[in-house]
Amino acid sequence: MSQNAYETGRLNLPFVGHCTFAKQPICTDWDNINADVAVLGVPYDMGTQYRSGARFGPRAIREASTLFSFGHGGAYDFEDDVVYLPTDKVKIVDMGDADIVHTDTVKSHENTRFAVRKILKSGAMPLILGGDHAVHAPVIEAFAGQEPVHIVHFDAHLDFVDERHGVRYGHGNPLRRASETGHVTGMTQLGIRNVSSSNRSDYEAARNFGSKILSVRHVRKLGTQGVLDLIPKGVRYYVTIDIDGFDPSIAPGTGTPSHGGFLYYEVLEILQGLTKQGDVVGMDLVEVAPPYDPTGVTGFLAAQLLMNFLGFIFEARHQRSR
Amino acid sequence: MSQNAYETGRLNLPFVGHCTFAKQPICTDWDNINADVAVLGVPYDMGTQYRSGARFGPRAIREASTLFSFGHGGAYDFEDDVVYLPTDKVKIVDMGDADIVHTDTVKSHENTRFAVRKILKSGAMPLILGGDHAVHAPVIEAFAGQEPVHIVHFDAHLDFVDERHGVRYGHGNPLRRASETGHVTGMTQLGIRNVSSSNRSDYEAARNFGSKILSVRHVRKLGTQGVLDLIPKGVRYYVTIDIDGFDPSIAPGTGTPSHGGFLYYEVLEILQGLTKQGDVVGMDLVEVAPPYDPTGVTGFLAAQLLMNFLGFIFEARHQRSR
Amino acid sequence: MSQNAYETGRLNLPFVGHCTFAKQPICTDWDNINADVAVLGVPYDMGTQYRSGARFGPRAIREASTLFSFGHGGAYDFEDDVVYLPTDKVKIVDMGDADIVHTDTVKSHENTRFAVRKILKSGAMPLILGGDHAVHAPVIEAFAGQEPVHIVHFDAHLDFVDERHGVRYGHGNPLRRASETGHVTGMTQLGIRNVSSSNRSDYEAARNFGSKILSVRHVRKLGTQGVLDLIPKGVRYYVTIDIDGFDPSIAPGTGTPSHGGFLYYEVLEILQGLTKQGDVVGMDLVEVAPPYDPTGVTGFLAAQLLMNFLGFIFEARHQRSR
Amino acid sequence: MSQNAYETGRLNLPFVGHCTFAKQPICTDWDNINADVAVLGVPYDMGTQYRSGARFGPRAIREASTLFSFGHGGAYDFEDDVVYLPTDKVKIVDMGDADIVHTDTVKSHENTRFAVRKILKSGAMPLILGGDHAVHAPVIEAFAGQEPVHIVHFDAHLDFVDERHGVRYGHGNPLRRASETGHVTGMTQLGIRNVSSSNRSDYEAARNFGSKILSVRHVRKLGTQGVLDLIPKGVRYYVTIDIDGFDPSIAPGTGTPSHGGFLYYEVLEILQGLTKQGDVVGMDLVEVAPPYDPTGVTGFLAAQLLMNFLGFIFEARHQRSR
Amino acid sequence: MSQNAYETGRLNLPFVGHCTFAKQPICTDWDNINADVAVLGVPYDMGTQYRSGARFGPRAIREASTLFSFGHGGAYDFEDDVVYLPTDKVKIVDMGDADIVHTDTVKSHENTRFAVRKILKSGAMPLILGGDHAVHAPVIEAFAGQEPVHIVHFDAHLDFVDERHGVRYGHGNPLRRASETGHVTGMTQLGIRNVSSSNRSDYEAARNFGSKILSVRHVRKLGTQGVLDLIPKGVRYYVTIDIDGFDPSIAPGTGTPSHGGFLYYEVLEILQGLTKQGDVVGMDLVEVAPPYDPTGVTGFLAAQLLMNFLGFIFEARHQRSR
Amino acid sequence: MSQNAYETGRLNLPFVGHCTFAKQPICTDWDNINADVAVLGVPYDMGTQYRSGARFGPRAIREASTLFSFGHGGAYDFEDDVVYLPTDKVKIVDMGDADIVHTDTVKSHENTRFAVRKILKSGAMPLILGGDHAVHAPVIEAFAGQEPVHIVHFDAHLDFVDERHGVRYGHGNPLRRASETGHVTGMTQLGIRNVSSSNRSDYEAARNFGSKILSVRHVRKLGTQGVLDLIPKGVRYYVTIDIDGFDPSIAPGTGTPSHGGFLYYEVLEILQGLTKQGDVVGMDLVEVAPPYDPTGVTGFLAAQLLMNFLGFIFEARHQRSR
Repeated sequence: MSQNAYETGRLNLPFVGHCTFAKQPICTDWDNINADVAVLGVPYDMGTQYRSGARFGPRAIREASTLFSFGHGGAYDFEDDVVYLPTDKVKIVDMGDADIVHTDTVKSHENTRFAVRKILKSGAMPLILGGDHAVHAPVIEAFAGQEPVHIVHFDAHLDFVDERHGVRYGHGNPLRRASETGHVTGMTQLGIRNVSSSNRSDYEAARNFGSKILSVRHVRKLGTQGVLDLIPKGVRYYVTIDIDGFDPSIAPGTGTPSHGGFLYYEVLEILQGLTKQGDVVGMDLVEVAPPYDPTGVTGFLAAQLLMNFLGFIFEARHQRSR
Repeated sequence: MSQNAYETGRLNLPFVGHCTFAKQPICTDWDNINADVAVLGVPYDMGTQYRSGARFGPRAIREASTLFSFGHGGAYDFEDDVVYLPTDKVKIVDMGDADIVHTDTVKSHENTRFAVRKILKSGAMPLILGGDHAVHAPVIEAFAGQEPVHIVHFDAHLDFVDERHGVRYGHGNPLRRASETGHVTGMTQLGIRNVSSSNRSDYEAARNFGSKILSVRHVRKLGTQGVLDLIPKGVRYYVTIDIDGFDPSIAPGTGTPSHGGFLYYEVLEILQGLTKQGDVVGMDLVEVAPPYDPTGVTGFLAAQLLMNFLGFIFEARHQRSR
Repeated sequence: MSQNAYETGRLNLPFVGHCTFAKQPICTDWDNINADVAVLGVPYDMGTQYRSGARFGPRAIREASTLFSFGHGGAYDFEDDVVYLPTDKVKIVDMGDADIVHTDTVKSHENTRFAVRKILKSGAMPLILGGDHAVHAPVIEAFAGQEPVHIVHFDAHLDFVDERHGVRYGHGNPLRRASETGHVTGMTQLGIRNVSSSNRSDYEAARNFGSKILSVRHVRKLGTQGVLDLIPKGVRYYVTIDIDGFDPSIAPGTGTPSHGGFLYYEVLEILQGLTKQGDVVGMDLVEVAPPYDPTGVTGFLAAQLLMNFLGFIFEARHQRSR
Repeated sequence: MSQNAYETGRLNLPFVGHCTFAKQPICTDWDNINADVAVLGVPYDMGTQYRSGARFGPRAIREASTLFSFGHGGAYDFEDDVVYLPTDKVKIVDMGDADIVHTDTVKSHENTRFAVRKILKSGAMPLILGGDHAVHAPVIEAFAGQEPVHIVHFDAHLDFVDERHGVRYGHGNPLRRASETGHVTGMTQLGIRNVSSSNRSDYEAARNFGSKILSVRHVRKLGTQGVLDLIPKGVRYYVTIDIDGFDPSIAPGTGTPSHGGFLYYEVLEILQGLTKQGDVVGMDLVEVAPPYDPTGVTGFLAAQLLMNFLGFIFEARHQRSR
Repeated sequence: MSQNAYETGRLNLPFVGHCTFAKQPICTDWDNINADVAVLGVPYDMGTQYRSGARFGPRAIREASTLFSFGHGGAYDFEDDVVYLPTDKVKIVDMGDADIVHTDTVKSHENTRFAVRKILKSGAMPLILGGDHAVHAPVIEAFAGQEPVHIVHFDAHLDFVDERHGVRYGHGNPLRRASETGHVTGMTQLGIRNVSSSNRSDYEAARNFGSKILSVRHVRKLGTQGVLDLIPKGVRYYVTIDIDGFDPSIAPGTGTPSHGGFLYYEVLEILQGLTKQGDVVGMDLVEVAPPYDPTGVTGFLAAQLLMNFLGFIFEARHQRSR
Repeated sequence: MSQNAYETGRLNLPFVGHCTFAKQPICTDWDNINADVAVLGVPYDMGTQYRSGARFGPRAIREASTLFSFGHGGAYDFEDDVVYLPTDKVKIVDMGDADIVHTDTVKSHENTRFAVRKILKSGAMPLILGGDHAVHAPVIEAFAGQEPVHIVHFDAHLDFVDERHGVRYGHGNPLRRASETGHVTGMTQLGIRNVSSSNRSDYEAARNFGSKILSVRHVRKLGTQGVLDLIPKGVRYYVTIDIDGFDPSIAPGTGTPSHGGFLYYEVLEILQGLTKQGDVVGMDLVEVAPPYDPTGVTGFLAAQLLMNFLGFIFEARHQRSR
């Protein structure tokens, strides 16, 4: 275990210093990413169908993550009695953001694909901060040429629309686009709910692709292990988390809130279980819209969840490697 | 089932266009309401004993309801596998608001009664958007001459005060007034809680009238079916929902919040059950106070609940009519 | 002068009723617009380079305009001793919004052009509510085939960028696009200021086109009449008002605020003078971003300015016609 | 001049301690008010025609006034080189609030009259914190039996409506009611502006009563002294300040904002001049609506203005008595 | 039981009158506190490691508590069928705040100890309103010379840091300081969670002192009675409640929120149980930070919890004394 | 003039990428600062006497400054026809923040002095982002051993208190501390106003030191050049800007707002004049408190002012060096 360094160097309280993800080092030389995790912001919000503002999601999550950065030598969790993310073992860098071009979805998505490919080429795990859910499509497309993945998807909405009025790359389409890539072997879609989630025909299309779709109430009935049992084991997982999969009580700051969503431990425990039955190779967390988050709780939720999830992933890898 | 019409006509995203309830047509000719449901705002907030602002409730709920308006051809719910509110079968109109006269509760209530009578005369079901809970009194009084109803009441407070300092028509009195009308056969009052809910004598008066009073914890102990079993079956229901019956975590934007309230599915499932054991003939949803709802979640809760409740009501009628 | 009708019909206080512009009637049959002024929202905000949210501009301005709607029989101004907008002489309708397609600037702009052409065809004056300033381009393009106009432009930014990274239709380009249409004979650009307003080359391009560019301090030095004297007289004016031309003290709710902007009367008096020296044939007011306007003052500014400007226009026409 | 007492007793920073007006002592025994100034809140907001919330005005102004309370021994102003409000010479007490009865304007106004009469009987000067402007009517009515007063009125609106839909005591009527009392000898109305300020007939009625009406632009043209010269000298003044007389840039937190209002020194200097040409015997400051004042600037404006105005009044009395 | 007095005297609605705790009388003569409960604010927030603002906690809780003040004759709870806090039997006074000295933690804490000792000397029970959690240290130190207490601690964080960079009296240290006083016999720490809660070594130190530490999930697994069984019975309890022990859904307004916290009844029922198995002799509630609580729910939670807890304490004493 | 580089590399819109000051490079190796300007945050807010929150000032100003970062090749101002801050001529780095120790003013100030000395040693000009005004004291103390400076001070408050209750390093003391350093030759204090600005004795002490004190109204009477003429010429200036020197209309987000403050151009033009009559060698901008700045205008003011001031300084140096 790494050394506590509180008295040497700076106290470095959460509110002090630049806002990078978890106060980890910046790496803007994308041809020399040397890390276990590379954090990339994709501040794109032209794909949303209701409230915009998710373009400031990456900044808000970085700011919120500074609250969880002040464990020196790693992040101790007394419930698990584990020091997660030991700083000498897991290296995280913050790459900044994909270059977004206003008015231009095609170029913005290209730039996103470009950035994610840089991460994958370096061997680091991509951790993508949206932006609206439209950014999932170019991210997952960038995985072309990698080993296939199973997508685990948390969301209030199915996001499986093919096309409406010519739109194929908005925030209602990304899982459909993912299903077409060829390197996605299946999907588990969790938290889907309410009458605005999608049309019947989209559900049929998702099921035809092989997706397993569960509402929040379904998940509660099954329990954490019941859900985990429905997800293929021993495969590579890509996890996409739309913050509106969570309940508006803890995630009000989002574009299209839907009541009746997940609470914190429900998602956390599925994520923790997931790391034990397969390898998580990438993730995105999207739809945090800071203009609608005056108390900051949505940003804190995103940051806290990501920090814990990263800890679980590398602890599980560590356990497997022993 | 009605036809999907996404590619003909407008895309009509939620943030586009005028704010009527669920983007349904306006009907300001109150002598020619030709609809199944008539939505009426009553922007009155002179009855509140703490934070005012509910006068903007109707506008906020209308705005929020646009988020749930973009299912064309009806609202598909995959958990129930039902398309609710098929647009060719259920006609909703938005009548605008009762005319409110500042400083004058008597006239404002008169105008409210006038508007509700217009709806009832047309045969449509009134859906009333408050305003503070004081508006329930004139609304229920307007049902005079109709078949009697059983009131199902969601609230943190009993609202059964007779008179204090001469006040008989404030937001603490409406259920007492309802009990005196002669056309209310009974009440079920759900969610009542905490030391500020009412005096012991008001509880006694309510019980003497025949009211069944359950706290949130009582409801949780009984379960949805247990609660439904306590409500008379086969009767006409009028449902009055004070948004502060819900927990402040999902309904902070209200005048007199009270912690320990209902969560979303708890109320939703009672409402759904209700539609199956009797006929809902009117409803009001009150006390949404937008100045205290910076994230909009309270407005979304009201709109989402009403949309689903309407769906259940007409689906149940449809089932019964088969 | 029209009749005061306070005691007949409804009191109709500002907070009561649907939010249309100044509570004027809705006209959604765009082939039968029969009015002097047709109000159209264009809730597009994909063109912004900083804070999004202007998509809710039309709704916020409509809501704010209800405050200025309660003069019956017209709007009396005691400073001028004139009843503006006598309801029996000036007819305003609210057409709703152009249909916006998320992710797709080309289609959204097409839909905007389509709607504006409908207005022009009807003979009504278009009053456009943005949306970000990108919407000015399709609006002005829709004037093709009309008599030429001189554009009077209030803004902190020059908005005369030709192209960057392929972007030609963002919120930094619209006046450049206007200059290329062939039916814009000149421009007066007022309020332009600060280091982020544009590059030197854009200023040169604007001046080459014949634009007169004045900063806020220039305008103050010249005075209202001095400014009016620089604007060609006896021509048709199209006025485009970016709310960020105003000072952040009264217009904080916008995407790219710039300190040192116009105060209320400075713009009002130029607009009033303008109506006396030529005919205003259209206008847009853009960049009101409600998520950054918690007190509502930006929306009120837009509504108050537009109401007064409309009054001046029709009063001047009335004076000229006598 | 009184003694500086910083090191004896408590530091008593502004954020420390109960919120009374300027941290002055509470006096709830209204039959034993022994003070030069008695501060009374009237948290009534049922008279407003647009945004409610002024019921929390008294609390917000008290809280804001604590910022201006930490001069010990009085309030030194270096521009005037005067210590205002020497604590051993001017005694201020905070009486709490008039008892407001929800739904009931008549009783609420009665209670307001009752409280103001108690102040007047004690010989203290009433300083009334609204509430909406409707509260001015009962306050001024309570002056019956006192020597007559000339009212100096700051406002965006004329507030001289006689009756509409039976309403005679709303926030649009109070100056009309004052004009009918018999003990008001005249009025000067300053800051009145914009098309929503009132109808032509109300202006005529006010002028017939003898009111002098000046817009903000009129005041600016005349200058402070020019305005003071229009106000009768050597009489008793009652000052009623609607915070919306100020510009929305510094007073956004109010029910019916109107752009183009007064700036701080414009009003301050008229008030200071007033104290030198007659005796101010009472005042109210109304329409501060805290739900629309997230930064607190409106409350600070009210508190800062009142503190300075009180200082001017007692300094002028002191000068006259020498 | 005391007499209902609604019609005699004032109606005294929650929004009317000065903000003292539960509208109870002020007692600023600290040498003559004659009460069962003495409420003291400690508006100190220099101990926080992230968001400041808790200095306005006392004012916000007092304001919120007025909502729960309008039961006359005591506070009736229909679930328990008990009138709590009968006004003739339980006397509460509000002492105002400890004197805080900016920049100076040592003096501020001294002043806090001074004030608490005054309460203890009077025989009243101290109810302390923070401020950040640093204020717990001087409060508990002031209990020196009293009978020993067992501390029951609700918090997301362990707060058991000894020293970092010389800091021994910040908001991460208070329970460690308490453990060193000699008059604290043990601790039960509830709600502790997440990776930022503390280091492993602090957990060890706490356990070595004899602390029982339970996370939210531990508490849920044990149930209310299971938790109560782990707390020593028949002893004197001091209860310290960091509002961030609660979930951010109901307590967003705090400096260092942590998702996955307690819901309302979970804490309420432990507190109620506690009063039945021992005597509560003091309490503090800390870390309410109003600048991050735009809806007020955090302040309401604090006020509602404290009012109920006080009721339970005195009802239990009453039961024991029979 | 430097080359426009819009089409090579990234578009890099303001909302994209990490938040450093004006998106300039980070330099955390404080022993190798190689720049013309070194930006340092000092997120300390324990010195404030009213609203805290200025600890987030540095982050808010950095975020706001990204809006003014997108001029490539420098910042063109068309009023002056100058490209300011040509990127090949003026190098700015962002050092991050001084290490702040909660509860400990002495250590925090030491760490601030340490950081500023590093900048001065490197030869760069320090640009300090507060934090509250207390941070000015250690900053100016760090100039010991440098050539003496004249301080130009913008503020509502005199900040010249010697000691109260032992406090010598709070936000009311820094200019007094500066006056004692020996390397401050004089002061010009601008904008000082209102009864809460300071005691008479503090004014005397400041004048005895040789300070020139002007209120906002004094400055307006003198005009820009009149003020500049009162400031010694040809000396080294250190500029300290308390954002509350500005009017609350454009700087609401601060701890102790005072109405009647400076408008934007008033300060800008004095600053521009200053650069022409002497050399500015350091500056701090303090008291931006983001929790009270929901629209962001205060942060934008700080960023816009600093960007322009930097431009003036280096342009003036450039002019002098020709």
